[in-house]
Amino acid sequence: MAKGLPKRAEDFSGWYNELVTKADLAEHSDVRGSMVIKPYGYAIWENMKSILDAQFKATGHQNAYFPLFIPKSYLSKEAAHVEGFAKECAVVTHYRLKTGEDGKSVVVDPEAKLEEELIVRPTSETIIWNSFKNWIQSYRDLPLLINQWANVVRWEMRTRLFLRTAEFLWQEGHTAHATKEEAIAESEKMLEVYADFAEQYMAMPVVKGWKTESERFAGANETYCIEALMQDGKALQAGTSHFLGQNFAKAFDVKFSDANGKQEHVWATSWGVSTRLMGALILTHSDDFGLVLPPKLAPIHVAIVPIYKGEEQLAQISEVAHKIKAELQELGIIVKFDDDTKRKPGWKFAEYEMKGVPVRIAIGPKDLENGTVEVARRDNLSKTGYSQEGIAPKIKELLDEIQANLLERAMKFRTDNTTEVESFEEFKQVLENKGGFILAHWDGTAETEEKIKQETKATIRCIPYDSVEEEGTCIYTGKKSAKKVLFAKAY
Amino acid sequence: MAKGLPKRAEDFSGWYNELVTKADLAEHSDVRGSMVIKPYGYAIWENMKSILDAQFKATGHQNAYFPLFIPKSYLSKEAAHVEGFAKECAVVTHYRLKTGEDGKSVVVDPEAKLEEELIVRPTSETIIWNSFKNWIQSYRDLPLLINQWANVVRWEMRTRLFLRTAEFLWQEGHTAHATKEEAIAESEKMLEVYADFAEQYMAMPVVKGWKTESERFAGANETYCIEALMQDGKALQAGTSHFLGQNFAKAFDVKFSDANGKQEHVWATSWGVSTRLMGALILTHSDDFGLVLPPKLAPIHVAIVPIYKGEEQLAQISEVAHKIKAELQELGIIVKFDDDTKRKPGWKFAEYEMKGVPVRIAIGPKDLENGTVEVARRDNLSKTGYSQEGIAPKIKELLDEIQANLLERAMKFRTDNTTEVESFEEFKQVLENKGGFILAHWDGTAETEEKIKQETKATIRCIPYDSVEEEGTCIYTGKKSAKKVLFAKAY
Repeated sequence: MAKGLPKRAEDFSGWYNELVTKADLAEHSDVRGSMVIKPYGYAIWENMKSILDAQFKATGHQNAYFPLFIPKSYLSKEAAHVEGFAKECAVVTHYRLKTGEDGKSVVVDPEAKLEEELIVRPTSETIIWNSFKNWIQSYRDLPLLINQWANVVRWEMRTRLFLRTAEFLWQEGHTAHATKEEAIAESEKMLEVYADFAEQYMAMPVVKGWKTESERFAGANETYCIEALMQDGKALQAGTSHFLGQNFAKAFDVKFSDANGKQEHVWATSWGVSTRLMGALILTHSDDFGLVLPPKLAPIHVAIVPIYKGEEQLAQISEVAHKIKAELQELGIIVKFDDDTKRKPGWKFAEYEMKGVPVRIAIGPKDLENGTVEVARRDNLSKTGYSQEGIAPKIKELLDEIQANLLERAMKFRTDNTTEVESFEEFKQVLENKGGFILAHWDGTAETEEKIKQETKATIRCIPYDSVEEEGTCIYTGKKSAKKVLFAKAY
Repeated sequence: MAKGLPKRAEDFSGWYNELVTKADLAEHSDVRGSMVIKPYGYAIWENMKSILDAQFKATGHQNAYFPLFIPKSYLSKEAAHVEGFAKECAVVTHYRLKTGEDGKSVVVDPEAKLEEELIVRPTSETIIWNSFKNWIQSYRDLPLLINQWANVVRWEMRTRLFLRTAEFLWQEGHTAHATKEEAIAESEKMLEVYADFAEQYMAMPVVKGWKTESERFAGANETYCIEALMQDGKALQAGTSHFLGQNFAKAFDVKFSDANGKQEHVWATSWGVSTRLMGALILTHSDDFGLVLPPKLAPIHVAIVPIYKGEEQLAQISEVAHKIKAELQELGIIVKFDDDTKRKPGWKFAEYEMKGVPVRIAIGPKDLENGTVEVARRDNLSKTGYSQEGIAPKIKELLDEIQANLLERAMKFRTDNTTEVESFEEFKQVLENKGGFILAHWDGTAETEEKIKQETKATIRCIPYDSVEEEGTCIYTGKKSAKKVLFAKAY
């Protein structure tokens, strides 16, 4: 019934690709590296967006919109930033096409060449700080707390739906503050918003921590991140929040006068999550039968499937189904009653399993006699008989239980797949045989970090907030280390 | 107090530009033709979006997302379409920058030239129909009702904030149907959705009609439109809906098999409204003191301003203000209590007038004594004393009244500025001295339409749905005409 989904144990990567297609989430477009987000996938993203957007607004942020195009020269203004982003970007050089000499094709009009090339935004720090320069004069204008929902483009050679695409959708927060402390507090606060969203809505536990210097955002003084563990034992960076110091304020000359009239450069943060979260969601919960969705993000909570022979029986079952549907809807539960007569129940069961609908209710002739229904949970595939009487609040409880169970299961998986090691031998062995998160001592140098990466392909995902202070020695160099850091192979 | 806004009667164009800036709606960016939509402007756009999005979903549409980039060759596939759009588009030719020879600047890497140039979407028919080809096989897959919220780029030489910008935000609906009739019905239905939104939410009356052949969308068999009349007597096209026939289905070879297995090309529509609606909203209602917003789209419904001397008085007034705010919020009214001690009441009054907040409540020491407040309406600038007791439901009624009054006022303005003429002399006279909508007979030819445009700058805005059948003669050629059409100078 799994319509040919490869098994995770046999071909994890193939399983993911097929699942994204078969659950109707997204597909590759003919434009290299760009994806089409299909309606069902987009509906999940819309749920993510609306929850996050409400959180941003609740924490005092306002949405705005800045240009798609960035003049090439802006990128050069912040030295580290251009280094990080100029290598992989779409460049607009002309503004007109014309009919070709064959009278049919269209060609670029060489006379319509731009004086300065425009870059399709890979991220918007430069264009936004160019605006902030005019928005900020006095301490009264601060803090300035802005968010933008937008598409961005980073040219990628190897792409995977949701996980790595040339164009993707995201939000990018950009804030300006009067003091360093306030900017740091903002970066930390937004990381908490992300972590809370990941755990409470995506049911995906995350490790909060600091990136090492070499893994920081180009132009940041500090990068905070949340790291999640996928089912194949690889890590996925699910969100980042950056303390940008005064780097962009200096690059774009953004100063404010404090209460005493003294001029000072402002302090900045930026933070973002993207459609990559869709990939993380899939890789965290789904199984060999398809997508598994936490109820809080599912576009449909409950699918009702009638099992019947003949129109008369369908009519009787439909009556019960509509009654249950109405009761569920009153509790805010989104229900689809699938009475399509062109499809068989078996097909529908497989379809809703593939699409990760959290609860399926089947109603057959025996249920009519007994006043019951069959309730199937998508998370653990168990089935139970329920009385039709008073079913709605029980389904509501069940949805909460499924949400909690998914988080718990993912937590357990992460605990089982997090290993503390004390030697490089052990490190390599765990990495090869078990995978997952590995906590190990590191001497704090970029050289050692790089060597470990070269030899093992594992990177330091973060220095966890909750890493315990302890005397230890670097697994690679034997030098002193004050705490363990989190290693893994990563998406 | 109008902070230097030019008067509409003296400099309408300057008034608009200043208002957009001073009401903090948007600003020009350094990127030629691209605007920055500021938080207050974006909040109004978000309100428009969420209402329209709910309407699209209520009429059975689903959101999806398609690539920003369109391969150049796609544009050529539909002959009329490329003619209409290829002339004004941003062309991506390269995908990488590198450090320049001076070691500092960044330059386009000539080795990273794309084999086929990519166009930044000016509209998405081609890229979407390229996907629809894979989504549609059978009549069971129809109708396919898709909408996309996106940014698009059309290179414009003369730009004005919201009204005409190189990059703008919009939604574009794209639907596929089994029959011609169904597709036409869809185009008409979506025009009704737009017209209803314009009148019920924007309080902006619109004329519904058909575009003439020469004003149709490039690639459409029929274009339906809503036309609104601005305060300076110029028309503004506020939304269009296109019946595309089988043009794109044929260009991209999209066929379906009907119930009998017969293969046929599908029928299509597309329809869109954009951030241009922000311009229409401003030009319809605003006055010499600033923005005037219909309550249904206002980010803030009520601003409460305390008038006080000293902290003690402020504390007493604040108590009353917080109570009123809480009562209003319970009725779903969005309230800002502005107790900023750094600004004077007069400054705040002017500010909320400039920003078009529908209702302002002022509370002073005398109000404390009398249990009253002063309520000012933004639409007609009138002030009335209200009792604090039971104020909330009265303010709710007042907001409804303001919404209705704005529509009524705009309706009256349109009636007063719509003139039926019978001769070309009269046509020219009215156009020059009065402006507005002009209803006149036309012989139905593109030549006459073009000549009138050349001589007067007036264009046929639409052939109105409600134009009465009557025998008449074309004002320009004297040839026979069956009904009057709507002329105006337009944005």
